Amino acid sequence: MVNVTFVQAGYIGATTLIDALLDERASRKDISVRVISSGCKMDEAEAEAAAKIAAQVPTDLYVAVSPGAGLPGPKKMREVLKETGKPIIVVSDEPSRKAAKKLPEEGIGYLVLYGDAMIGAKRPFLDPIEMALFNADVIRVLSVTGVFRCIYTELDKVIEQIEKGEEPVLPEIVVNKTKALEYSGLQNPYARAKAMAAIEAARKVATLDVEGCFKTEGAQNYIPIIAAAHELMRYAAKLCDEAREIEKANDSVKRVVHFRSGELRSKTKLFSKFEK
Amino acid sequence: MVNVTFVQAGYIGATTLIDALLDERASRKDISVRVISSGCKMDEAEAEAAAKIAAQVPTDLYVAVSPGAGLPGPKKMREVLKETGKPIIVVSDEPSRKAAKKLPEEGIGYLVLYGDAMIGAKRPFLDPIEMALFNADVIRVLSVTGVFRCIYTELDKVIEQIEKGEEPVLPEIVVNKTKALEYSGLQNPYARAKAMAAIEAARKVATLDVEGCFKTEGAQNYIPIIAAAHELMRYAAKLCDEAREIEKANDSVKRVVHFRSGELRSKTKLFSKFEK
Amino acid sequence: MVNVTFVQAGYIGATTLIDALLDERASRKDISVRVISSGCKMDEAEAEAAAKIAAQVPTDLYVAVSPGAGLPGPKKMREVLKETGKPIIVVSDEPSRKAAKKLPEEGIGYLVLYGDAMIGAKRPFLDPIEMALFNADVIRVLSVTGVFRCIYTELDKVIEQIEKGEEPVLPEIVVNKTKALEYSGLQNPYARAKAMAAIEAARKVATLDVEGCFKTEGAQNYIPIIAAAHELMRYAAKLCDEAREIEKANDSVKRVVHFRSGELRSKTKLFSKFEK
Amino acid sequence: MVNVTFVQAGYIGATTLIDALLDERASRKDISVRVISSGCKMDEAEAEAAAKIAAQVPTDLYVAVSPGAGLPGPKKMREVLKETGKPIIVVSDEPSRKAAKKLPEEGIGYLVLYGDAMIGAKRPFLDPIEMALFNADVIRVLSVTGVFRCIYTELDKVIEQIEKGEEPVLPEIVVNKTKALEYSGLQNPYARAKAMAAIEAARKVATLDVEGCFKTEGAQNYIPIIAAAHELMRYAAKLCDEAREIEKANDSVKRVVHFRSGELRSKTKLFSKFEK
Amino acid sequence: MVNVTFVQAGYIGATTLIDALLDERASRKDISVRVISSGCKMDEAEAEAAAKIAAQVPTDLYVAVSPGAGLPGPKKMREVLKETGKPIIVVSDEPSRKAAKKLPEEGIGYLVLYGDAMIGAKRPFLDPIEMALFNADVIRVLSVTGVFRCIYTELDKVIEQIEKGEEPVLPEIVVNKTKALEYSGLQNPYARAKAMAAIEAARKVATLDVEGCFKTEGAQNYIPIIAAAHELMRYAAKLCDEAREIEKANDSVKRVVHFRSGELRSKTKLFSKFEK
Amino acid sequence: MVNVTFVQAGYIGATTLIDALLDERASRKDISVRVISSGCKMDEAEAEAAAKIAAQVPTDLYVAVSPGAGLPGPKKMREVLKETGKPIIVVSDEPSRKAAKKLPEEGIGYLVLYGDAMIGAKRPFLDPIEMALFNADVIRVLSVTGVFRCIYTELDKVIEQIEKGEEPVLPEIVVNKTKALEYSGLQNPYARAKAMAAIEAARKVATLDVEGCFKTEGAQNYIPIIAAAHELMRYAAKLCDEAREIEKANDSVKRVVHFRSGELRSKTKLFSKFEK
Repeated sequence: MVNVTFVQAGYIGATTLIDALLDERASRKDISVRVISSGCKMDEAEAEAAAKIAAQVPTDLYVAVSPGAGLPGPKKMREVLKETGKPIIVVSDEPSRKAAKKLPEEGIGYLVLYGDAMIGAKRPFLDPIEMALFNADVIRVLSVTGVFRCIYTELDKVIEQIEKGEEPVLPEIVVNKTKALEYSGLQNPYARAKAMAAIEAARKVATLDVEGCFKTEGAQNYIPIIAAAHELMRYAAKLCDEAREIEKANDSVKRVVHFRSGELRSKTKLFSKFEK
Repeated sequence: MVNVTFVQAGYIGATTLIDALLDERASRKDISVRVISSGCKMDEAEAEAAAKIAAQVPTDLYVAVSPGAGLPGPKKMREVLKETGKPIIVVSDEPSRKAAKKLPEEGIGYLVLYGDAMIGAKRPFLDPIEMALFNADVIRVLSVTGVFRCIYTELDKVIEQIEKGEEPVLPEIVVNKTKALEYSGLQNPYARAKAMAAIEAARKVATLDVEGCFKTEGAQNYIPIIAAAHELMRYAAKLCDEAREIEKANDSVKRVVHFRSGELRSKTKLFSKFEK
Repeated sequence: MVNVTFVQAGYIGATTLIDALLDERASRKDISVRVISSGCKMDEAEAEAAAKIAAQVPTDLYVAVSPGAGLPGPKKMREVLKETGKPIIVVSDEPSRKAAKKLPEEGIGYLVLYGDAMIGAKRPFLDPIEMALFNADVIRVLSVTGVFRCIYTELDKVIEQIEKGEEPVLPEIVVNKTKALEYSGLQNPYARAKAMAAIEAARKVATLDVEGCFKTEGAQNYIPIIAAAHELMRYAAKLCDEAREIEKANDSVKRVVHFRSGELRSKTKLFSKFEK
Repeated sequence: MVNVTFVQAGYIGATTLIDALLDERASRKDISVRVISSGCKMDEAEAEAAAKIAAQVPTDLYVAVSPGAGLPGPKKMREVLKETGKPIIVVSDEPSRKAAKKLPEEGIGYLVLYGDAMIGAKRPFLDPIEMALFNADVIRVLSVTGVFRCIYTELDKVIEQIEKGEEPVLPEIVVNKTKALEYSGLQNPYARAKAMAAIEAARKVATLDVEGCFKTEGAQNYIPIIAAAHELMRYAAKLCDEAREIEKANDSVKRVVHFRSGELRSKTKLFSKFEK
Repeated sequence: MVNVTFVQAGYIGATTLIDALLDERASRKDISVRVISSGCKMDEAEAEAAAKIAAQVPTDLYVAVSPGAGLPGPKKMREVLKETGKPIIVVSDEPSRKAAKKLPEEGIGYLVLYGDAMIGAKRPFLDPIEMALFNADVIRVLSVTGVFRCIYTELDKVIEQIEKGEEPVLPEIVVNKTKALEYSGLQNPYARAKAMAAIEAARKVATLDVEGCFKTEGAQNYIPIIAAAHELMRYAAKLCDEAREIEKANDSVKRVVHFRSGELRSKTKLFSKFEK
Repeated sequence: MVNVTFVQAGYIGATTLIDALLDERASRKDISVRVISSGCKMDEAEAEAAAKIAAQVPTDLYVAVSPGAGLPGPKKMREVLKETGKPIIVVSDEPSRKAAKKLPEEGIGYLVLYGDAMIGAKRPFLDPIEMALFNADVIRVLSVTGVFRCIYTELDKVIEQIEKGEEPVLPEIVVNKTKALEYSGLQNPYARAKAMAAIEAARKVATLDVEGCFKTEGAQNYIPIIAAAHELMRYAAKLCDEAREIEKANDSVKRVVHFRSGELRSKTKLFSKFEK
């Protein structure tokens, strides 16, 4: 039994379901999961508080999930967790790329998720419903393009190593469009193109939201930009839906499920058997 | 400052974002949030373990989120939390309705969410990607139909009471199609009809997934049923998308945002000012 | 030559085209069809009057089509027809299930059609155009899901028996989602899932229309419910369209046509030959 | 009480629901309806047989529905009905235009329906399911574009005259795109343009089906043409769906319902009251 | 090196990209292209002026592109070009059919493009944006249905003959629905049906625009007709999009590219090699 | 009468219709247009040859249209045209921005069009059909977002100045998302957001096509990237379609047409009169 603790501060799209990706049917016998989060806030104090709770939890592996891995909050979170001596994997968004690449120096692994875009976080636009809808779109993009499969495949590898008593080799992966597609399992080349388009559209969403939130003055000016960003994310999700529908039409949806032992097995035809 | 702790065991759609609904831009000065979860598992041991962590966290309010409020795990979770003497609000799905209605006897409030349907949790069908896509659809349904707005509006009322030092009046609400629509803010009557259709379609999804997961023998027989359920949830989400697009076309999307003080204010025209 | 007389009182979706299903290109040499209907009305007097006309028509087989086979009108219709001593097959909707199951005791066969949902028959909502559009959606659902193919396949069996001078074995079939799909000819498993979802959505439409028409007071309250029902039927039809488009994309649309002799032959590729 | 008898031979789209258009909720106190049909066949013998049954039914008005009003079957049908001395209104398709225009000489009224297109009636293509789906599309086109509303408005006028004991003035209307739109109740000019496009697309469907069925040799040659025709009808229906969705988005769907007295009243906002 | 000069007066859909069809990646070593156009105007003076410029350009082949090949402007253009003694191919729209068929008498070849419909050229409707959007739809129709491939395949044949020093055999082709489909490369029979439907819908667009522009008095009367025409062209384009998406889903999009030598080679699977 | 000559070398989206934007119904009495192009090729020799033809044409204004205004071909073209002493306006794509900004030093104006993206010009992907479909999408984006309206509005200003005998003030505009939207005439704020999203998606298309065409080795690697780019452009066009449909639904499509005098007048309701 491997104990995995997710420590979260602030939200990226992956925050919503990352722990569920490990045990989609609550059936695994080889892991026990805890999630500790400070919710949307990710300043130093909040992140530290969440991390301190997490540090008390008996754990074999920490997965630290937050936007902006280089920001003070996530940094503080890692400091607290590092004191436990347990392996840590950071999961964060594209702006964290630079900070993430330095993490291996500290013995920390990372998954940097392209396409997990910043939201249009301005008061005249973003209410909880707009926020939730944006996340629904992001989840679709991360699901179909391979980003989510990359996450659980890579975390599973580490879990398996820990279970076997091996020294875990932590992932150091920038999940860009090429890397994501490798995990996507999409068979049709146009479905793959649509998925790749979705990731890149989602990255443009991030750019627009940064422009709207940080570089633009006046609601009259920034509302159109962040509204455009959210429209684009809606279309990125539609591209993904179209990609998956192609796979359904060809009965070639790749499913990679967790067996009770934690082992991953895959199938593509809906009524076929799993292969190892 | 009110401390709110979400304690979660197992997944419903609301689990993914419920804490984020309270502070969509991480800007509120009046609350501090913690989330403690046992991930997908919700048996007694796991739920209890999560609850025990949560019971150690300084808190003014517990929100206990899980499927099946009447099941042993969620029950045990409540028992642990009750020992803290803090107010507890249970958020759960439609099958919890009966159990939830008895909670006020124990001084516990509840929000029972219709449309937050059970997933098609059978191994030959449900891998993490299928799971995540289903949740993306559920989030869309809960967002547009008013369920999510009901959640944050009602939690905010309690938070405000606590902040004022009042004895909180805990919600006791079955968020069915009529109740949800009241919160939805949808203006166009056909958008409302589409949203209502979506909730009811989502409830049928739940029925189908129960049939497929618990009442049907043999993968050849249950796969079609749960696959049908997921197709229907995808269409429930599409209905919601169509409803919201109508509101956009009429520039009548109701936004109800959190101000820094925690106060909720609303607007409908994208470029209008907020009203109290 | 077998004479088939359809006697109809009131409307279900199947009423619109049931006789046409038997002879889609008006080319069969082995049957002659009459339809006698009292239109939308199905009270005892109207149903009886239609039945009496039908009883005068030289016939080898009666097919009695109406909603609510257990209601007085349809009952009276059967009584009149029974006096002719000719075989009778009742075609009706899901609420007729209980009544239909008793019909074999009287020597009457039945086809109970799931998904052939009640309409939202309230004056402030249902005008002839709304009624017709609802029926267009219902026809699509019954066509793609296999319900219509079940009807004509089963009626054809009886016709063939009569033509051969055999004692006809009348169908006793509840055309639920599983049974319908058997007849649908859909090849792709996701197309099948979409079709199954459509039937179940259509059944939910029936539930909503019953709620709106019979259990809800006040136009403000029932209009949203029946409007939601019609929106959902529109989406059930869309699901069916999507299913059929998948089959088209795979050039696997199963066609089962009537030859001049009345024999049914099938093909799947658009440009292939028929097989027996 | 006015007795209306529909006599039908062969199928046009209007055949499916024409009597239902008169009494959409089965609530009218002022009419009693009978339908007598020979099903899909419309040769002289079949049409005559159906007409003879109809001639026995106590009736104040006959509505004769068939394709090709100038063909021998429909002609014979009218001859039989004329002997009853009752008023007759012919409802038929565009190719009947020339024949219909001569009917007033015989004291017969007519409604010639543009857009009620011939089907692709070739064995290698048209099975009952393809036939039913085509009709679903036709019904949508006739509903949204105003053709169906023209039918029931005009029949109602005659019924009212008969009820008042007046000499009925029978309609003599070619329901072309302009005439249909007058009845459609569509408010938005682009919705109207879409509806008009749909009628004209449907007329092109008729042209293609005539080409495919009567002017083209060899299945390899005619299948593509009639398949194209059906694809085009599917898109004509989509245009109508888009038109109606615009009206819904503007809450301006015109509903013209039958009251119990048979009187027609209309409303446009979903929650408004009826106006006379 | 073959010099090809396109001379254009007025606009058909093909005008926009016809020269680009010959050298899609600007890579051909065997041709040099010039385009000389009088823009939208095509009266005698303008057409002659453009032709005179073109007549000065060193050329091996003229391609004369305009609507209405029988009109005075295009006629004059041909007269001027004929004086050069170089081979001329006329590319024009369906109304040019009759005039085009006589061109071979003058030694001129032709491509008459069905589906390249007249625009709704009335001032209260057609601004440059409406014009451009109509052309975007037309381009899609001409691309997917095979019309554009017919153009470049046939022009390439002539270019090759000229390059080899042969007497060129000029094309004399009416690109109707059957001819176009031959060039389309569409593999799926339903994709082909959709494309054929699109051409025929586009031809109806032409009919409607002629009716609206030349046969209808009063803006109130002609605006609906030409607006309907443009809506129908939008749907013709959608049909084509649907057809191509089917081919993508089957990874069977036929690509026929120009190699540097000018040679055409084709492939269907996206990642396959070209075949001669 | 002002003579306007468009000189083109190579293709951007605007190349297809730029001259037509000036005289959408071929009705202007105040201008005469010539277009001289070297087709797809834009190397120095080809561009120079086209320019030399253009330099012979009596002209009051040159509009030089090409990609990459800083490349040798377009540069040479300008050199040739400059010798005529006539005013020159360069229309080019985003990568030309830097070069364009220096043009005013030479007395040349410019319009730099964001969203007019480079195509995926690799042989294993781009055949003439793929090229044409890409352009159809680009045209839609440039039309709805305001880019095309900016072009013709700005060219018209210069034409008017020339006609009045004034020294023309040449435009110096980078048509980015904000600038484009100013010209778009879109009224609904969400339609505007969708249009803005489309421009930005189109810019990402350009980035991807540059990456695929110039920075990626091996067909296996670059095909997915440029295929993704084209999928994204298809969706950018869809966003624009959705935006325009919103305006249609609100009867608020802004039309700005050329009157015979060349004057621009606008209207928004389809059946309203023009305003100056």
